[in-house]
Amino acid sequence: PSGLFPDQTSKNNIVIQADFTLTFQCYKQALLMQENGLFIGEVLVLDIRLHPDFSILQKISRFYVSPFLVRKIFKPRHRFAHKGQFGHSLLMVGSYGKMGAAVLAAKACIHSGIGLLTCYLPSCGYLVMQLAVPEAMVITDQHENNISQLPEELDKYNVVGVGPGLGTSPETQHTISFIIRRGTKPLVIDADAINCLAQQKELLKHLPKLSLLTPHPKEFDRLFGLHENDFERMETAEKKAKELQVIIILKSHHTLIATPGGQSYFNSTGNAGMAKGGSGDVLTGIITALAAQYEPFEAAVLGVYLHGASGNLAARVISFESMTATDLVNHISGAFQELYPSAP
Amino acid sequence: PSGLFPDQTSKNNIVIQADFTLTFQCYKQALLMQENGLFIGEVLVLDIRLHPDFSILQKISRFYVSPFLVRKIFKPRHRFAHKGQFGHSLLMVGSYGKMGAAVLAAKACIHSGIGLLTCYLPSCGYLVMQLAVPEAMVITDQHENNISQLPEELDKYNVVGVGPGLGTSPETQHTISFIIRRGTKPLVIDADAINCLAQQKELLKHLPKLSLLTPHPKEFDRLFGLHENDFERMETAEKKAKELQVIIILKSHHTLIATPGGQSYFNSTGNAGMAKGGSGDVLTGIITALAAQYEPFEAAVLGVYLHGASGNLAARVISFESMTATDLVNHISGAFQELYPSAP
Amino acid sequence: PSGLFPDQTSKNNIVIQADFTLTFQCYKQALLMQENGLFIGEVLVLDIRLHPDFSILQKISRFYVSPFLVRKIFKPRHRFAHKGQFGHSLLMVGSYGKMGAAVLAAKACIHSGIGLLTCYLPSCGYLVMQLAVPEAMVITDQHENNISQLPEELDKYNVVGVGPGLGTSPETQHTISFIIRRGTKPLVIDADAINCLAQQKELLKHLPKLSLLTPHPKEFDRLFGLHENDFERMETAEKKAKELQVIIILKSHHTLIATPGGQSYFNSTGNAGMAKGGSGDVLTGIITALAAQYEPFEAAVLGVYLHGASGNLAARVISFESMTATDLVNHISGAFQELYPSAP
Amino acid sequence: PSGLFPDQTSKNNIVIQADFTLTFQCYKQALLMQENGLFIGEVLVLDIRLHPDFSILQKISRFYVSPFLVRKIFKPRHRFAHKGQFGHSLLMVGSYGKMGAAVLAAKACIHSGIGLLTCYLPSCGYLVMQLAVPEAMVITDQHENNISQLPEELDKYNVVGVGPGLGTSPETQHTISFIIRRGTKPLVIDADAINCLAQQKELLKHLPKLSLLTPHPKEFDRLFGLHENDFERMETAEKKAKELQVIIILKSHHTLIATPGGQSYFNSTGNAGMAKGGSGDVLTGIITALAAQYEPFEAAVLGVYLHGASGNLAARVISFESMTATDLVNHISGAFQELYPSAP
Repeated sequence: PSGLFPDQTSKNNIVIQADFTLTFQCYKQALLMQENGLFIGEVLVLDIRLHPDFSILQKISRFYVSPFLVRKIFKPRHRFAHKGQFGHSLLMVGSYGKMGAAVLAAKACIHSGIGLLTCYLPSCGYLVMQLAVPEAMVITDQHENNISQLPEELDKYNVVGVGPGLGTSPETQHTISFIIRRGTKPLVIDADAINCLAQQKELLKHLPKLSLLTPHPKEFDRLFGLHENDFERMETAEKKAKELQVIIILKSHHTLIATPGGQSYFNSTGNAGMAKGGSGDVLTGIITALAAQYEPFEAAVLGVYLHGASGNLAARVISFESMTATDLVNHISGAFQELYPSAP
Repeated sequence: PSGLFPDQTSKNNIVIQADFTLTFQCYKQALLMQENGLFIGEVLVLDIRLHPDFSILQKISRFYVSPFLVRKIFKPRHRFAHKGQFGHSLLMVGSYGKMGAAVLAAKACIHSGIGLLTCYLPSCGYLVMQLAVPEAMVITDQHENNISQLPEELDKYNVVGVGPGLGTSPETQHTISFIIRRGTKPLVIDADAINCLAQQKELLKHLPKLSLLTPHPKEFDRLFGLHENDFERMETAEKKAKELQVIIILKSHHTLIATPGGQSYFNSTGNAGMAKGGSGDVLTGIITALAAQYEPFEAAVLGVYLHGASGNLAARVISFESMTATDLVNHISGAFQELYPSAP
Repeated sequence: PSGLFPDQTSKNNIVIQADFTLTFQCYKQALLMQENGLFIGEVLVLDIRLHPDFSILQKISRFYVSPFLVRKIFKPRHRFAHKGQFGHSLLMVGSYGKMGAAVLAAKACIHSGIGLLTCYLPSCGYLVMQLAVPEAMVITDQHENNISQLPEELDKYNVVGVGPGLGTSPETQHTISFIIRRGTKPLVIDADAINCLAQQKELLKHLPKLSLLTPHPKEFDRLFGLHENDFERMETAEKKAKELQVIIILKSHHTLIATPGGQSYFNSTGNAGMAKGGSGDVLTGIITALAAQYEPFEAAVLGVYLHGASGNLAARVISFESMTATDLVNHISGAFQELYPSAP
Repeated sequence: PSGLFPDQTSKNNIVIQADFTLTFQCYKQALLMQENGLFIGEVLVLDIRLHPDFSILQKISRFYVSPFLVRKIFKPRHRFAHKGQFGHSLLMVGSYGKMGAAVLAAKACIHSGIGLLTCYLPSCGYLVMQLAVPEAMVITDQHENNISQLPEELDKYNVVGVGPGLGTSPETQHTISFIIRRGTKPLVIDADAINCLAQQKELLKHLPKLSLLTPHPKEFDRLFGLHENDFERMETAEKKAKELQVIIILKSHHTLIATPGGQSYFNSTGNAGMAKGGSGDVLTGIITALAAQYEPFEAAVLGVYLHGASGNLAARVISFESMTATDLVNHISGAFQELYPSAP
C-alpha cells in the first residue's frame, strides 16, 4: 500500500488502508508485522516466476513457514512404535485461580503425541487436573497455592515446560530461578515464567542452551526493554536468540521464530479467533510435547504451525467470537492429519 | 384476533384464540406481549408495500429487532486482532448450591468474544469453576458460601456482571450495594442482584449510567411495583430507563430493551425451549462479554438477539423439552456465524 | 410357540424355543413376560383386520403402549411458554459412593422439560452435582454421607422424587419414612427408597395418593412378597395399585404400569443395551420431571415410553454393550422429537 | 526380507529394511515380533490356496486372531436380557496423582457390557471417580493416598481387576499380596500390580487359576527375568502360562495371549496411535468387564482384539499423535458393532 515501507517501520507515515495488497513472488517483511495490520487487508502473493536458483543464491535468513517446510520436519509414526519412543514431558504449571491455564497446556500436550505426561502443580490444582486430563499423571507441591520447589527426579523427563498459570509469587520466582540455573536440558518457558525472568534478568545468561521462550510482545518488551516498533522487536529477537543460544518465539499474527543459528521464521497459520486468553497455554503444551520428539528448532516451527492450523480448522466450524482454547486443543488432531503424506 | 386491542391490554376482553394471525406491514404491539400469547397463535406479517419513507416520517420509538439491524451493530474481527482489543470482564456470581448459574454465565461469556474473563466467587465455587471453565481465571471471596466483599483492582475490568446464583444473603446485599454506589463504569445486573436492588430501592438512583438490568417480569415488578398488564410494564420500563439513564432488558418471549434515549426494542428471536432455569444466566454472560466490546445499548440489542438465535439453532437439533442452558451456550457460535457478511 | 400358555405361566412346560413368533391382531400376555423371553424370539403381530369396534366392546383393562397412545398424552409447548409453567421438582438422591445415581437422575430430569430442579443431597455430593449438572440447584443435608432429614419448604416443590443412590442407612430410612407420612403430594419412589419401604411395610398404607413406585422384580418381591412367576407378579401389581391408590411401575423388558383405576399398560420400547446399572436412575429422573407437568398416570406412561425410546435411539448409534445410562440421557431429546406432530 | 529368520531372532543379522513384505498363506512368527518392526514394513499375506485340511493336520499351537475367530467367541445380547446377567466387577485402582488411570479403566469397563461396576479407591480418588464415571459405584479405602486393605464382601464380585494407577507403596503391595493369596476367582492383574508381583515373586505360585496378567515387555522381564529377544519372551510366556495355569497377555504391536492349555494367540488389531500412557489401563477395564461375561480365555482374546479395533476406529477420525486413551474408550462401541451378525 502506498506509504508503507517494505522493510522498516512506517509508524510515522501516512499510509493507504488497502482492502487487498498484491505482492510479487513472496511476502515482504512489512506485510508480516502486527503494526501494519490495519493497512494491508488481505495479502495475495503473485508468482512472477523468478528462477528458483535466485532465491537460493540470496543469503536469506528469514523464511515464511510453508506447509512444504513443515512436512519436511514432520515424522510420521512407525507401525511398531511404542510409547517409550515419544518421550516423557513435565509441565510445571498453575496457581490458585489459574488452574485453567494448566489444564489447557496439559490437554494440548496430550494431544500432540507425547508418550507420557506428568504435571507438577500446587496442591490446589490436584483435583482439577486429575479430572480434566485423566491421561496425565500429577505430582503436587506441598504449597497449597503456588509452586514453591522442584519435583524430584527432574532428570528423568525429556522436556520441562514452565509457565502457564504459575503466577509471580516469590516462591514461584525462586523455583523458576532454580530450574533455570540447574537445568541442562532445554526448557520451554512461557507466560508467568517469562515474567519471572523479566524480573531477574541475570537469569537470562543461565538459560539452558536451545531453550524455547514464547513471549507475546508485551512480555518480550518486559524481557528485553521497550521497542518502538515491530521491526526493532524482530531484530532484538534475532540478536538475543544468537547471543543466548535460545529459540525465541515472539507471538503475533505472524509469529516469529528466531533461532540461535541466525535464521528466523514467520509463521503462516492462525486467525483472529485465537486472540483470547488460553491460546498461549495451548501453544506451550504443544511445544512441550514436540520438544520430546523433535529437535528444539523443529519443535518450535512445527508447534507454532500446528497451533495456528488448529485454529484455522476450528474456524471452519466455530465463529471467531466463540472459539475457545479448548476448541484449539480439539483441532490439533486435524492439524496433524494435514501433514500426513496421504493428506490432500 | 377479534377482541384483541392492538395497543392496550385486552385482559378483560373476550378474545378469539386464533391459530394464525395475519397482520399488515409490521407487528402490532399486542402481538408482542406475553399476556396475549394464548390468543394470537402463529403471526404472519403481510407486506402491503407502504412507501419506506412513511415509516421514517413517523415518530417511531419502538422497534422490532431485525437481522438487518443486528448486522449493522455487529463488528467482524480484524485479521490482526489481538486479545487486548476484546476487553477483560469480571463476573461476580455464585453462592453455595447455585454455582451452576455462575458456570453457565461464565461459559456464555467465554463463547461471546471476550478477551479475558475473571470470575469472582465464594470459596465454595473454586473447584467448580476451575474445572468447568478452564478459560476463566478465578478469584475467591474469603467467605465460604457467599460473596461478602469486592475484589481488588476493580477498575482494571472493562465490565462487571453481577447476579447469577448470588443469593440474597445480607453480606451479598451489602456487597452489591457497595459496587453500585462506587461504580463508575456500567454494570450488568441480573437475577439475585436485581432482587437485592428491589430490597434497597434507594440504590436505584446510584446505578452507574448505562448499566444494563435484565429482570424477568416478576423481578421487574419487585423492582418497580406490581403491574396489571404487559402494556403498563412496558411503559414503566421505558420511563425508568430514561429516568435512571440505564438500559432495562425486560425478559419475555419478545424481550423488551428500553434505552435511556427513549427508544425501545422488541427482540425477534427465541423459543419455548428456553423457558427453564439457566437461560437467564446465559444471557447475562453474553451481555457481560459484549459490553466489553460494544456500546452498552449495542451490547443489549446484540446480546438479546444472539441469545434467542442460539436457542433457535439449538431447537433445530434438540427438542424444546430437552434443551438445556448448556445447549444455548453451545449454539452461540452458530448465532455469531449468522451475522458474518458471508452468511446466507 | 408350542407349549407356551398365552395367559398363564408356562414355567413347568416343555416349550419350543422359537426364532420368530407370529401372533394375530395383538400381543398375547405371555409374549410380554420376562420369563418367556427365551422361547419367543422376535414377535410379529399380524393384522387380521378385526373390526375396530370389537376391541372397544371387550372389557379390556390391559393395554399395550403404542406411539398413538403416547402422542395423545404428550402436550407440545406453547410458543409463549415461560419456565413457571413447567414446575419445580425436588430430587432427594445420593449417598457416599453412589453420587453417580444422583447425577444420572438429575440429568434425566433436566432433559425432560422441567422448569426448575433442586437436588437435596448429602454433603459429600455437593461438588459432584454442581459440576455435573450446572442447571440444577443444590441443597445439602448436614450429614456428610447420607440424607438424614428433610429439606425446608418441601411444599414449594411440585413433585419430589426419592431413591436413586440413597443407600439404606438408618437415618435415610427414617427420612424416607418421614416424607411418606407427611406427604400430601404424590412422590416418585425408586431404588433404595423402595428398599426402605420394604423394610417398613407399615408405610405402604401412608403412601400419598397417586405416588409412583418403580421397582424392578427383585425390589417388587421385597415389597410384596416372593412370586413364582411374572403372571402372579402382574396380578399383585394390579391389586396393590388399586388397594394403595398408587401407580406401580414394574420394570422389565415390557415394563408394566399398573394404575389405581384398574387399567394396566405394557410398555413397547427399550432394549437389552439398557440392562445395566444407572438405567433405572434415568427413569426416575424422567418421571420426576414429567409428574410436574402431567397427571401422575400420564407421567408414568409417557416417562416409561420415552425412557425406552431413548434407549432405542441410542442403540442406532451405540452398541448394546457400550451404551451407558449417560447415553440414555443424551437421547431423551430425540425421543421427545418423535412425539412432535410434525415428526415422521 | 533377506537376512530375517522366520522363526528365531535376527538380532545379530544384517537385514534388509523392506517397505513391503510379501508372505505366503499366513504370517510367519518373525513378522509378528516387535524387534523386527523396522525391517518388515507393510506385510501382505498372499493366499496360495493350500488345502484347508493341511493347516488342520498340522499341530498348530500359535494362532493369529482373525475377525472370524472373534465372532465365534462373541455372544450377542438376548432381547429380554437384564443387568443381572452381565455380572458385577470390582476395580481396585488408583493412588494419589494417578487417578486418571483409574478413571480410564473404569470408563472402559462401563463401555464393555458390564452389568454393575464398583471401584475401590484410595480416599483421594473419591470425587474424581464419582464425577468422571457416574455409572460406577465407589468404595474408598480409609487410606488417603493408597489402597491399604481389601474391600468387604469381596466374594460378591464376579471379577476383580487390580493394577492401573495403584503405585507400589508398601501398603498397596501388602494388599495385592493379600488378594492374590486369598483369591479363589480369577483376577485381572495389570501395571503396578504386576510390579508388586515382580517384587514378591513367591506370590506367582499363589495366583488364582485362570487369572489374567497383562504385562508390557519391561514388566514381563521384571516378572520373569531379562530376555534377549522377543522369541525368548514368547517362549517364556507360553511356559509360564502352562506352569502357573494363568493367561499371560504380553502387550506389543501384535499382543501375545498365552494360555494354560498351551495355545497362544497373536492379536491382529491396533496401531501406533495407541503407543502412549493410558492405553493399557483401557485394556484392563475392557478385560475386567468381559471376564464377568465370558470364560477367562475368551475374555482375553476378545478384549485384546476389541481394544485394538477401538484404536483402529479412532484412527479413522483422529491422528495417531492426538489419539488419547479416552478416544479408545469412545470407540469401544464401534468395535463391538463390527462383531454383530449384521455388521458388514
